[in-house]
Amino acid sequence: MAASGPLIVDVHTHMYPESYMNLLRSRTSVPYVYDPPTGDPRLIILSSDDSAATPKHLRGRPVGAEYWNVESKLAFMKHHGISSSIVSLANPWLDFVESDKALEFAERINTDMNEMCASVASRPTFASAKVAPLYSFGTLPLSGPPDAIVSEINRLKTLKYMRGIIMGTSGLGAGLDDAALDPVFAALEQTDSMIFLHPHYGLPSEAFGKGSNAADRYGHVLPLALGFPLETTIAVARMYLSGVFDKFPKIKFLLAHSGGTLPFLAGRIESCVEHERHFYDEQNVRSKGPQRSIWEVLSSNIWLDAVIYGAPGLKAAVTSQGEKGWERLMFGTDHPFFPPLVRKKETADIGEEDWLSVSTNTEAIRKVFGGESVEEEGVLGANAVKVLGLN
Amino acid sequence: MAASGPLIVDVHTHMYPESYMNLLRSRTSVPYVYDPPTGDPRLIILSSDDSAATPKHLRGRPVGAEYWNVESKLAFMKHHGISSSIVSLANPWLDFVESDKALEFAERINTDMNEMCASVASRPTFASAKVAPLYSFGTLPLSGPPDAIVSEINRLKTLKYMRGIIMGTSGLGAGLDDAALDPVFAALEQTDSMIFLHPHYGLPSEAFGKGSNAADRYGHVLPLALGFPLETTIAVARMYLSGVFDKFPKIKFLLAHSGGTLPFLAGRIESCVEHERHFYDEQNVRSKGPQRSIWEVLSSNIWLDAVIYGAPGLKAAVTSQGEKGWERLMFGTDHPFFPPLVRKKETADIGEEDWLSVSTNTEAIRKVFGGESVEEEGVLGANAVKVLGLN
Repeated sequence: MAASGPLIVDVHTHMYPESYMNLLRSRTSVPYVYDPPTGDPRLIILSSDDSAATPKHLRGRPVGAEYWNVESKLAFMKHHGISSSIVSLANPWLDFVESDKALEFAERINTDMNEMCASVASRPTFASAKVAPLYSFGTLPLSGPPDAIVSEINRLKTLKYMRGIIMGTSGLGAGLDDAALDPVFAALEQTDSMIFLHPHYGLPSEAFGKGSNAADRYGHVLPLALGFPLETTIAVARMYLSGVFDKFPKIKFLLAHSGGTLPFLAGRIESCVEHERHFYDEQNVRSKGPQRSIWEVLSSNIWLDAVIYGAPGLKAAVTSQGEKGWERLMFGTDHPFFPPLVRKKETADIGEEDWLSVSTNTEAIRKVFGGESVEEEGVLGANAVKVLGLN
Repeated sequence: MAASGPLIVDVHTHMYPESYMNLLRSRTSVPYVYDPPTGDPRLIILSSDDSAATPKHLRGRPVGAEYWNVESKLAFMKHHGISSSIVSLANPWLDFVESDKALEFAERINTDMNEMCASVASRPTFASAKVAPLYSFGTLPLSGPPDAIVSEINRLKTLKYMRGIIMGTSGLGAGLDDAALDPVFAALEQTDSMIFLHPHYGLPSEAFGKGSNAADRYGHVLPLALGFPLETTIAVARMYLSGVFDKFPKIKFLLAHSGGTLPFLAGRIESCVEHERHFYDEQNVRSKGPQRSIWEVLSSNIWLDAVIYGAPGLKAAVTSQGEKGWERLMFGTDHPFFPPLVRKKETADIGEEDWLSVSTNTEAIRKVFGGESVEEEGVLGANAVKVLGLN
C-alpha cells in the first residue's frame, strides 16, 4: 500500500471478528459484550471493570469499528503504510469457553478469519500485491479436550492464510509449564506452527504493592505497562525452568511486547538458575532444571515483536537474540489498542489519523537500526515475510 | 588493591554488621537470627522460610562470615580486584522495628558501619590509597516518626564514610508514592543524599500465575529473578506516576539491579501514560499525572548499578539514561549473595575463589564497552568516585 519505502508487516494486530463478538454477546458475565441502546458496544473483559456500581453502558470500554470491522483495519494500515497484517484474535481468546463448546467456536472463528483474509486478498486493489494484505494467527480451543486442540492445530495448517496460533499464558488452566500441555506443544512443534504468546491476566492487584489502591490512582498504567510484560516473562520463565524447550527443541514462540521483560532479565534468570541449590543434587551436580542456556533458547526458539516503544528496550531485544538478533525482531502495532486519546471523528472514521503508539515504535526502530539499512528493512517487514512465509 | 588495571568500585555490596545481627538475634519471629548449637547462624527473613515443619537449625539460610565479618569482605574484594566498596545493610533493614526503637537502632548501626570504614581505612595497607577501601550507605529509621528519620538523614551527612542511604520499597508502610514521605524526600533532596533503592518484598506468590506452586518447583528462581526486579520497577513507577520527581526535581536514586526492568519498560510506561484517559480532563487536556517524561527522569534523577548479568540488559540500561548514559552506570556485585554453589572450604575461608556472579557482570561490561575504554573505566569505578565523591 505504501507508495515507496520498505515493506511494512504488522505481526501484532488484533480483531474481535463478528463471530467472536456474538459469542461474547451471548454471555452475561466477564468476558461479555453489552450493546447499549445508543453508541458502540461495550466490551467488559476484566472483573474489575464489571462493578455493579457502574451502569452497564459505562462498564468496560467502548469497542468501535476498529475492533471488529475489516475496513477499519485496512484504513489504519493504509494510513500507516502497512502492507500486510497478521491479524490475531484479541484476548481473552477462548480461555473462558465451556469445554464442549471450545472446538466449535475455535473452528468457526478461525474459518471466519481465514475467509476474511481471502476475501480481502481477492479485491482488485491487491491483485498485484506480492504479499497478501491480511494473514492470521489462529485461536486454539484450549478449554477443550487435548485431542480437539490437536485436531484444530492440524486443521489450521490447511487454511491458506493462517500463519500460526495466538495463545495466552494459562494453557489448559495451570500455566504453560503444565505437563498436560505436552501433546499440544508436540503438535505445534511437529506442524512448525509459530506460537504468538500474548498476555491477558496481568498481575494480581496486590502485586503492585503496599498502599496499593495504586491501580486506581494511576488508571490502567501499572497493570498494562508492568503487569502485562511480567505475565509474559513469568510464562516463558516457567516454560524454560520446567524444560519445555528441552522437550521440544524446535518449538517456536513469537513473544508479544518484545518478550515482556525477558531480554532485559535473561541474564538474571540465567544467573539465578546457576546459583539455585534446588537444581543440584547432594554431590553438587546440576541434575535438575533447564538443560540449555536461556541465551540459546532466545536465539533458536524465540522471536520478538518490536512493540516496546523505545530504543533502550529494542537494543536489549536485539542483543538478547544473538549475533543475528535483528533477524528475529518483527514490527507490530498492537492495533486497535492504544488509540490516540484526542480524536477527530471525521478523520478517525476513515482512518486518517496518526497513531502515536505506531510512530513511537517506528522511530525506535529507526533510531536503533540507523535508517534504510538491511536490518531496519528486516525488522519492519522482510523478517516477517521470511519467518512466517508470507509469499 | 588491584596491582594494575582500572580502579574498581563496588556500589552494591551488603553486610549484616554485628549490631544488626544482635538485633535479629533478639527476635523470635521473621526476620530473626537463630544460632544453632553448631555451625553458622541461620537467617530467617521470609515467612515462607519459617515453616514450623522445618527444624529451626535448617530454616532460612546459613549466614557465614562473609555476611558479617569485614575481613571476609576485604578478602573477597582483594581476590576480585575491587579497590573500594560502598557497603550497605542488607534487606530487610529496619522496616520491621517498633517505632520507638527505630532511631536508636539506626544510629547504632550507622555509627558502627562508619567506624568499621574508618578503622579499615586507618590500616597501614591502605595508607597510600586515594580512595578509601570502604564507604557505606546508611540505614533510615523508616518505622519511626518522620522527625527521627529527618534527624538521622542530617546526622549521616556528618559521618565521614557515609555516601547516602539504602532504602526498600515500603517507605513508611504505604509505598514510596505516599505523600507522608514528602518530608523525608525533601530532606534527602536538600542534603543531596543518594538513595540506593533495593527490593526485598518481591511479588506475592500468586503473581507467578496459575498452577503456581511454581515458586516451589523452581527454588527461588522466580522470586529472585523476576519478583525482585519487578518490585523495584513498580516502586519507581509509582513514584513517577504520583509526581515524586516533579515535587523533588533534584532527588537522586541509585536503582539496584540496573533498575529492575525500568530501562526496558520505560518506553511502555511512557506510552501507557500518554494513552491513559485517567490523566486527562473532560476537555482532553492532560491535567494529571507526571509532568516530566520518564526519559528525563532517567537521565537526571536516576543512576543504575550494573548488576544485570548480561550485555542485553546493560545496553538497555545505558541507552535509557540518555546520551551520556554510561556516566550513570556503576559496577556492583551483590556480595555476599549469590556465592559459588560448589565451594572448597580452604579457598572459600580466605576469599580465594572466583565468584561467577561477579565475573558475569564484569564480562557484560567489557562486552558492551569494548574493553579499556573511558566508558568501561567509568562504569567499573571512575563514575562511582565522581558521583559519590569518594576522594
